[in-house]
Amino acid sequence: MNGNQTNGIKINGRHCIGFSASREGNDVFAACDPATGAELEPSYAEATAAEIDRALALAQSAHASWKRLPRERRADLLEKIADEIEALGAPLLEAANRETALPLPRLTGERGRTVGQLRLFAAEVRDGSWLDARIDRAIPDRAPLPKPDVRSFQQALGPVVVFGASNFPLAFSVAGGDTASALAAGCPVVAKGHPAHPATSELVGGAIQRAVQALDLPEGTFSLLHGRSNDLGATLVRDPRVQAVGFTGSLRGGKALFDLAASRPDPIPVYAEMGSTNPVFVLPGALAQGNGNVAAGLAGSVTLGVGQFCTNPGLVVALAGETTQELASSLAAKLGEVPVGTMLHPGIRAAYDAGVERLRSTPGVQALTNGTAQGEVNKSSAAAALFQTDATTFRDHPGLSEEVFGPSTLLVTCSSKDEMLDLAKGLEGQLTSTLLANDDDLEAFEGLVDVLTEKAGRVIFNGYPTGVEVCPSMHHGGPFPATTAAATTSVGTRAIRRFTRPICFQGAPQQALPLELRDKTEGLLRMIDSEWSREAI
Amino acid sequence: MNGNQTNGIKINGRHCIGFSASREGNDVFAACDPATGAELEPSYAEATAAEIDRALALAQSAHASWKRLPRERRADLLEKIADEIEALGAPLLEAANRETALPLPRLTGERGRTVGQLRLFAAEVRDGSWLDARIDRAIPDRAPLPKPDVRSFQQALGPVVVFGASNFPLAFSVAGGDTASALAAGCPVVAKGHPAHPATSELVGGAIQRAVQALDLPEGTFSLLHGRSNDLGATLVRDPRVQAVGFTGSLRGGKALFDLAASRPDPIPVYAEMGSTNPVFVLPGALAQGNGNVAAGLAGSVTLGVGQFCTNPGLVVALAGETTQELASSLAAKLGEVPVGTMLHPGIRAAYDAGVERLRSTPGVQALTNGTAQGEVNKSSAAAALFQTDATTFRDHPGLSEEVFGPSTLLVTCSSKDEMLDLAKGLEGQLTSTLLANDDDLEAFEGLVDVLTEKAGRVIFNGYPTGVEVCPSMHHGGPFPATTAAATTSVGTRAIRRFTRPICFQGAPQQALPLELRDKTEGLLRMIDSEWSREAI
Repeated sequence: MNGNQTNGIKINGRHCIGFSASREGNDVFAACDPATGAELEPSYAEATAAEIDRALALAQSAHASWKRLPRERRADLLEKIADEIEALGAPLLEAANRETALPLPRLTGERGRTVGQLRLFAAEVRDGSWLDARIDRAIPDRAPLPKPDVRSFQQALGPVVVFGASNFPLAFSVAGGDTASALAAGCPVVAKGHPAHPATSELVGGAIQRAVQALDLPEGTFSLLHGRSNDLGATLVRDPRVQAVGFTGSLRGGKALFDLAASRPDPIPVYAEMGSTNPVFVLPGALAQGNGNVAAGLAGSVTLGVGQFCTNPGLVVALAGETTQELASSLAAKLGEVPVGTMLHPGIRAAYDAGVERLRSTPGVQALTNGTAQGEVNKSSAAAALFQTDATTFRDHPGLSEEVFGPSTLLVTCSSKDEMLDLAKGLEGQLTSTLLANDDDLEAFEGLVDVLTEKAGRVIFNGYPTGVEVCPSMHHGGPFPATTAAATTSVGTRAIRRFTRPICFQGAPQQALPLELRDKTEGLLRMIDSEWSREAI
Repeated sequence: MNGNQTNGIKINGRHCIGFSASREGNDVFAACDPATGAELEPSYAEATAAEIDRALALAQSAHASWKRLPRERRADLLEKIADEIEALGAPLLEAANRETALPLPRLTGERGRTVGQLRLFAAEVRDGSWLDARIDRAIPDRAPLPKPDVRSFQQALGPVVVFGASNFPLAFSVAGGDTASALAAGCPVVAKGHPAHPATSELVGGAIQRAVQALDLPEGTFSLLHGRSNDLGATLVRDPRVQAVGFTGSLRGGKALFDLAASRPDPIPVYAEMGSTNPVFVLPGALAQGNGNVAAGLAGSVTLGVGQFCTNPGLVVALAGETTQELASSLAAKLGEVPVGTMLHPGIRAAYDAGVERLRSTPGVQALTNGTAQGEVNKSSAAAALFQTDATTFRDHPGLSEEVFGPSTLLVTCSSKDEMLDLAKGLEGQLTSTLLANDDDLEAFEGLVDVLTEKAGRVIFNGYPTGVEVCPSMHHGGPFPATTAAATTSVGTRAIRRFTRPICFQGAPQQALPLELRDKTEGLLRMIDSEWSREAI
């Protein structure tokens, strides 16, 4: 194994364990070229029990050290990681392109998002209002009992395991939103790289490793372990040193981790984002006003990134009628014009084929496109697919509600407003729900918005669900089965809170308090005697 | 069944289901006089499946209505409930005294705390900063992509089940902190009354029912179901209409509910506060300065309320030596002076006896008091008990770490600072940890505070863990097994957040937004384009 040279950085097929590289295992695997299925170099070795233990021991030790460091050091680290990722240059994008078939322009954008969110979290760490620092001062002469001095804020949970996602090799992988928010919170991270893009993971892992070293921070702040077995993930989630888990991926995978974590002697939270069908409700007024635009908008959203987004619209709901049939025809035509795309992996394409076949073979479902029948262009190629059915068939076949990961969507026609409301009420938890509606529609379909706010984490008006803005108000989450923790988000600055819990100090002398809770601290937003203030005491 | 008349309010032995009273079941039970074990009147009937279903159907319907009501209505309700509880007058305290043997002065204080926290949550609802309202305005001409208008805040989860606790028949029961914070969040509540104080529960349930009616609020806002079976609780937790659970009680009970909720097809959060041993570390400087005070302080905290507090100090840790033995003797003497108390229930006293016997029979543990050997004064009487052992024995017998609910404590002596640190590191999750320490101690025992912040939700300096101040900065929670959700508190204003999740609106017209997210709203703290502000847009 000679390793590949990229921009002066070698890809060695190794784990990053603290400041060391490691490869001790004998169970070897390799990523493949999605188009040909051919194995890529170098190979990787499944992490061994000893390697897992070293990574976790270092992480635990780093957690103790981090408690003593000012939080600005975490902001510095996040910014340094962003710089190191940018410094990897084109070879990082090329490695990701080789492993995922995602086009370079998309990967360039994704890199921008990745470093952007690292820097956003750095700013958030410095601002610190998410620490929710609170001080209630003592009232020694209060009757009948003296009031003690009580102070609290959010402290880091401890070592966090992050599972890299396949569909965002940068933004939701080794240095993605989960890692960025866990580090921002002050938690060491052990990342499990996704086995479909290990070289990309290794490059990014090395960038984090160099950032930690350059800033002289605790060695165990970050480790990256490679593996393709369920055992590696299960071992990590079961380990008593691990305090929380971040995951983006399939319902099956996320739920398995949730169940494992809940069955620990000491259960821990699993923040699993597991995708959804992201229904789009096309209401008649909006449809009449913009039929062509609706078809074009939907086709673009369904096929963006070969449909490989958690927010991909897999369900379109409209009233039965002529205009809706025109939409169906236009949408089928638009989808037919989209070039066949290459999915992330032959396995993902096989799952897409199976999902499309499930729709096609359900009685009462009509195929409006040829779908995969357009022929195999390569091992991972997938054509867009459109199906149509009615609300009764949809209701009677629960399989139609399941996400098909890829560029497919199902148009469901309802015979009435009430049938549409009933369909909405019957939906499972969703990351997003979308309404294409004008003001008259919103009045006529009163109650629909309320139902959708019960079902989804984000409700989009006259837009499309793909494209998740990274900003303080963004919520990327939703009721089960969209996630295992509806009260949390994996995108946006609120994501930090997942990796913290309150700690409260009563009657503590100043020197025993964290800096953020001491009298003299200023500039930090704190609730002091029930009033928010940035002043010192 | 004629019912008991109290202050014009009859105690009828009935459930409150929305605005109705109900008693359909045949499985009848009664509370007992703790001192005599004699059954009290009236009897209660276990809630039937039909009664449970009615309560939940009403709650679900109320949830839909509450979405449309301004949040100030919730504040009005909380204040009205407080008024109605006060209006019950002495008969409420007398009923609670009959059922729990808690003395009237204590119950008077607990009622004050109960109405105080209802009013605190009312003020918190009006203030609304916990809603975490955020607005990021659109930038239509941003390149490469327009920025959409994104807004979010915390919305109510839906129907919540609250389990009344036995040890606080008012403050942690039917109208206790869980109910107050769930209603504050906007969630309808179905309370399961604790079977040891059903008349107290019925009176308080009636007060809530009258408050809801008086303010013309949705009928299903509140229901109270009586029962003593595990089935009732399990049925409630499994029901798909229920979105979250609040519980205060035993580890066994809380963990069973957690497991049930995690095994639902759609898992929901269980906020179970399950008590802990609340270790008190007595460091040598503080001990030398105040030996007598330490013994008196500990004895008071151990025996307060016959030791029936979740924050009761069941573990005292000190360095071995002469001064510590003097503390042991003084503490044993002080505990011996405390009159034998009556516990809440003969069953709780039996569990206390068993716990004390477990300590007494562990090899290497020495009894320093006679404990329950002081003789049975009544069916629920319990004497204070003090045991002593060394750190090695403590480490080798995990049973010694388990909470004994009642006025018992275990003094563990350590041969060195390192042994004390190791003991601290080996602790399970705790609600509280306490340090009796002067400045020299804190320097000499460097690292101990850090360890305790990892183990507990609240660290108390030179005080005692019993007595939980209800204020914005209070945290009453901690890592498992103290609770099933370390990131949440069941006391203090942060408790509201447990019953909410973010909802995000993208590109929504003003009329489709909740009031709190509309442009014209002012006075509410919101993050607008990354800056906190109380201004309208």
